[in-house]
Amino acid sequence: MISFECDYCNGAHQKILDRLISTNSFQSLTYGDDEFSLSANEKIKKACKNDKLDIYFLMGGTQTNSTIIDSILQSFQSVIAVDCSHINVHESGAIESCGHKVVTLQSYNGKLRSEDLESYLEKFYADETYPHMTQPGLVYITFPTEWGTIYSHNELEKISIVCKKYHLPLYLDGARLGYGLVAEENDITLNDLCSLTDVFYIGGTKIGALCGEAAVFTHNNSNPNFFTIQKQHGAVLAKGRLLGIQFDELFTDNLYFEISTHAVNMAMQMKEIFKNKGYSFYIDSPTNQQFVIIKNDRIEELNKHFLFSHIAPYNDNSTICRFVTSWATKEEEIQELKKYL
Amino acid sequence: MISFECDYCNGAHQKILDRLISTNSFQSLTYGDDEFSLSANEKIKKACKNDKLDIYFLMGGTQTNSTIIDSILQSFQSVIAVDCSHINVHESGAIESCGHKVVTLQSYNGKLRSEDLESYLEKFYADETYPHMTQPGLVYITFPTEWGTIYSHNELEKISIVCKKYHLPLYLDGARLGYGLVAEENDITLNDLCSLTDVFYIGGTKIGALCGEAAVFTHNNSNPNFFTIQKQHGAVLAKGRLLGIQFDELFTDNLYFEISTHAVNMAMQMKEIFKNKGYSFYIDSPTNQQFVIIKNDRIEELNKHFLFSHIAPYNDNSTICRFVTSWATKEEEIQELKKYL
Amino acid sequence: MISFECDYCNGAHQKILDRLISTNSFQSLTYGDDEFSLSANEKIKKACKNDKLDIYFLMGGTQTNSTIIDSILQSFQSVIAVDCSHINVHESGAIESCGHKVVTLQSYNGKLRSEDLESYLEKFYADETYPHMTQPGLVYITFPTEWGTIYSHNELEKISIVCKKYHLPLYLDGARLGYGLVAEENDITLNDLCSLTDVFYIGGTKIGALCGEAAVFTHNNSNPNFFTIQKQHGAVLAKGRLLGIQFDELFTDNLYFEISTHAVNMAMQMKEIFKNKGYSFYIDSPTNQQFVIIKNDRIEELNKHFLFSHIAPYNDNSTICRFVTSWATKEEEIQELKKYL
Amino acid sequence: MISFECDYCNGAHQKILDRLISTNSFQSLTYGDDEFSLSANEKIKKACKNDKLDIYFLMGGTQTNSTIIDSILQSFQSVIAVDCSHINVHESGAIESCGHKVVTLQSYNGKLRSEDLESYLEKFYADETYPHMTQPGLVYITFPTEWGTIYSHNELEKISIVCKKYHLPLYLDGARLGYGLVAEENDITLNDLCSLTDVFYIGGTKIGALCGEAAVFTHNNSNPNFFTIQKQHGAVLAKGRLLGIQFDELFTDNLYFEISTHAVNMAMQMKEIFKNKGYSFYIDSPTNQQFVIIKNDRIEELNKHFLFSHIAPYNDNSTICRFVTSWATKEEEIQELKKYL
Repeated sequence: MISFECDYCNGAHQKILDRLISTNSFQSLTYGDDEFSLSANEKIKKACKNDKLDIYFLMGGTQTNSTIIDSILQSFQSVIAVDCSHINVHESGAIESCGHKVVTLQSYNGKLRSEDLESYLEKFYADETYPHMTQPGLVYITFPTEWGTIYSHNELEKISIVCKKYHLPLYLDGARLGYGLVAEENDITLNDLCSLTDVFYIGGTKIGALCGEAAVFTHNNSNPNFFTIQKQHGAVLAKGRLLGIQFDELFTDNLYFEISTHAVNMAMQMKEIFKNKGYSFYIDSPTNQQFVIIKNDRIEELNKHFLFSHIAPYNDNSTICRFVTSWATKEEEIQELKKYL
Repeated sequence: MISFECDYCNGAHQKILDRLISTNSFQSLTYGDDEFSLSANEKIKKACKNDKLDIYFLMGGTQTNSTIIDSILQSFQSVIAVDCSHINVHESGAIESCGHKVVTLQSYNGKLRSEDLESYLEKFYADETYPHMTQPGLVYITFPTEWGTIYSHNELEKISIVCKKYHLPLYLDGARLGYGLVAEENDITLNDLCSLTDVFYIGGTKIGALCGEAAVFTHNNSNPNFFTIQKQHGAVLAKGRLLGIQFDELFTDNLYFEISTHAVNMAMQMKEIFKNKGYSFYIDSPTNQQFVIIKNDRIEELNKHFLFSHIAPYNDNSTICRFVTSWATKEEEIQELKKYL
Repeated sequence: MISFECDYCNGAHQKILDRLISTNSFQSLTYGDDEFSLSANEKIKKACKNDKLDIYFLMGGTQTNSTIIDSILQSFQSVIAVDCSHINVHESGAIESCGHKVVTLQSYNGKLRSEDLESYLEKFYADETYPHMTQPGLVYITFPTEWGTIYSHNELEKISIVCKKYHLPLYLDGARLGYGLVAEENDITLNDLCSLTDVFYIGGTKIGALCGEAAVFTHNNSNPNFFTIQKQHGAVLAKGRLLGIQFDELFTDNLYFEISTHAVNMAMQMKEIFKNKGYSFYIDSPTNQQFVIIKNDRIEELNKHFLFSHIAPYNDNSTICRFVTSWATKEEEIQELKKYL
Repeated sequence: MISFECDYCNGAHQKILDRLISTNSFQSLTYGDDEFSLSANEKIKKACKNDKLDIYFLMGGTQTNSTIIDSILQSFQSVIAVDCSHINVHESGAIESCGHKVVTLQSYNGKLRSEDLESYLEKFYADETYPHMTQPGLVYITFPTEWGTIYSHNELEKISIVCKKYHLPLYLDGARLGYGLVAEENDITLNDLCSLTDVFYIGGTKIGALCGEAAVFTHNNSNPNFFTIQKQHGAVLAKGRLLGIQFDELFTDNLYFEISTHAVNMAMQMKEIFKNKGYSFYIDSPTNQQFVIIKNDRIEELNKHFLFSHIAPYNDNSTICRFVTSWATKEEEIQELKKYL
């Protein structure tokens, strides 16, 4: 059985594991003050070509989202996001459990449109009853989106401009950031993110690490009490080195992008195969998640050999299925898939 | 200047005021244990023809909604409501501030459709990732709705059936309950609400009281610690008698329905006048709120003599305006409006 | 049966009731924008001899405490209070339900000692693990305290100085403020409170109103979104005039102090009677609450004629009993008590 | 520099690391459904000699505490703990951030006394104002305590009896559970914990793992929606295998107890050395944390060679210092300490 179910069903990339082994016996400070975390911090700044960054390491996506968002919003503020957002759908109400509403706008190909955001904000402040409403305090987007799509530099810039106009920080959830950055059609860099967003996170869990995400505040703008907030969220690891070591390795010799490139290459091969076999796609994704429309009777058969997600019914006879690649996907596995299609 | 802005811009109905005066010097127990609250409790049970009710008096709508909902939901549960719901729009995120998501479905004429609810729930539990989502714990509807419309008995029954099928309690927000119950087209009674919903509230603030809402749990199903929850929400009045006296009076000699009938009669006269003058309505409301489409240049002039709400732009030249009647609306005021139209 | 159980078992002072009657038919704006609230606002500023005040009217004590505190604290901050504080004991965890810890210091005669506060803060910041702890964000005291005692000007000033040293706002809960201000031994004025505290509230419920407390921020330092926060807490009254009218009347012709003085006079007469009859006191209170130690067999008999609270066992044979006076207490009632002692 | 600062300044025990390496290339299910987690689950049941356990793996202590406690308490309930409890002091208000008060009782040698618990609960329910208070919903203790001490079987049983009498679940925080279980004076087994508590956790982070704690509900009594609650808390690891593999290894060939025994042996050697050198102890700890009173001038010198925590001033000249051992502590390091004392 070969799994294309997700990008987190294997362990860690070998180089990360090697690094854990080679560092294991060193004694270090705790809670993120270790030398590995400090080094990872420096390497990320370098990769971003920006030294005004506040960087914190957390364990997983939901935790990172709720900690960052809670560190920015005041009690009466909400976060704006598109309807299919991870924070709106798949985090069990984590944001609301911190007391904050997720205000939703419609998504297009998984993305927020700057004009929708602007129009919403205009109407909001034009409504004389707005003090009776929860106040917008942050805009949240994902890159790549839940549907594997990515914003162009131009799209992101326009969102950024609207945010600045309304004094709203912009937060970009990069659970699969690498896969977006290496996509062929992508024209955004890490350095761009530092000027276009106020905070983003560099996903590790889905890009070769055992666990871990790096929260990056882009202009020394993190809450001065971020550590305490992180602790309150149960989001501080006693052995912070576990996160530091992994990110230090991911940002050594370009490993983060190497992993990302491999996975996207595998996905593009897979896409080509599906296309050639006459399958159509629910959405045109340039990253490591492919959403293929498959007849229900075919699914059963394929499932005997492959694991993949059944996202939602497409129509009465077909289903939107998700195939995901990762650092661990092998070319043979793609070929095996080809054989069965 | 005559105000049609809302149903809470005057003081209290004279009979309520009289009763406050006549009872003022009595000493009573506090926090709702007073004889007035007990008597009001009995009278409401009688009006509902149901003696299995748990009744609590609270001060205002937002408070009542957040206290009731918080008393029902567990920490990981959400409430389902239509998009234009008061709890979703105009309560500053009060529900979320208690940790609960408001999951929204589309409204039609301000109402939730039972088929949409059922379809949502079916899909929810069919989605294999549902344990990653906040779990539905309650369905919330308003009667009349924010747009003045009301559910028919049949519509409410169908919603009730879906709720029972999915073991979801149904909560009906009756901030303007009386205005719905006395509407000509209405075929629902207080007694019906006791079998079709699990909890509802009888609005007082907007129907002649100085303040106050009566939360009614319909089958002795209130949280055994409701008082403590109420206290935690800052929703217990030390002089609980203030609420008891008012509800006791509202449910004496049919006053609640008398007030409601008067206001709806005034609204129907007003509706007729607008119609005759060629105005059209954004929505066909049978209750005390009328939503009239008015040309923007007319609004300015009308506003010199009348107060009313500008709800939203209808198009570039017209606005949806809301005119509201209450116990205090006088026939002369309606005639005065006619004169200026 | 005569009740000395509390200062909120009667209706409202006659002048307040009269004012509600005379204003009843006026139409006014809602949610606190009415002319009565504006006038009350001005009168309170005048009484405080300070025009830099931000004033908001709320309905009851718990609600006022949790709204004010939540408007000041960030999510990771706590409030410091003495162990017997109302917010720590009798508000069903309302502060914690907003996500904030109540950090407690020992009370002496119900009061916080400035030296304890300073010593706590010194140790807190000297502890290298302090970022792992919830951070102090506010100091809360009550005046009079839960035990009827009051701070001297000197004591309050010393607390104020410590707060300023540590950049902590100071909040004074004045549920029974009037009774403290008119106490014979008191040397603090409303104007003093404006310079010594950052926010306090003027209790209405327990001093002659039907309901209502006036939150006073002393140097235009309220949260710019206080209204939205208030709404989120269910603490905005649609008919805000109900609060405005009452406070306007309380601050007309010195009524607030007149009511307070009457109650304290009654309490002092009562204290004298108890003393003369050989009773001892659990605490020496100069305000309208008297804490008398009574033999358990005497209590039963007294309870046939009088209502009063049994606070806690004093020893195996005696109980600490609380006798409270108010605007409604009559000299005859005190004499009746004398008769039975 | 040798560190005795804590039991989490090294990486993981070699066997755990080996297991991560050997399992790395296996594909597995996610979010805790992997075969390693299932196997670890079975091994823990076996070690506990109880197959009615609900077991969940989480990442760290604060997270585990707040998730478990939040899964048990209703919104109006609080948790009872001693003053020096981790949840009360060192978790940045994580429990309160979920809306729950931590009610504190005095600790004796870090422990809760059953008689204090009983007396508190008796008084609580005897107080007629108790519905105005947050209701007790859980009792929390630590084993070993923050001061390294442990409960005897008899002490724990008496607490358990009081809890059962008041229908309060008992939760035992076992961040350092192994070190308590292997202490010479200990007479409690894992199996005992299953009958004496309702839930406990087996600490991994401090006992050889990279991260991870195993929450054990002792009679299939976990919240049926525990996974959703865990997710809401950001406490579900996508690669749940990371936790499963580690606990599977810890409970293979007695590794958990082997690690614990080694650390306690090292601590006992260290204790002996301090004793022989004439040092006195702040508390008599039988586990891997030793609290030594050291003259302030000596500290500076020792710190040149050793890292250890300065807990609190003992008096003007001395400080309470904490020395901690772990799986990684070597006998040579203890001897090195001896040399410098």
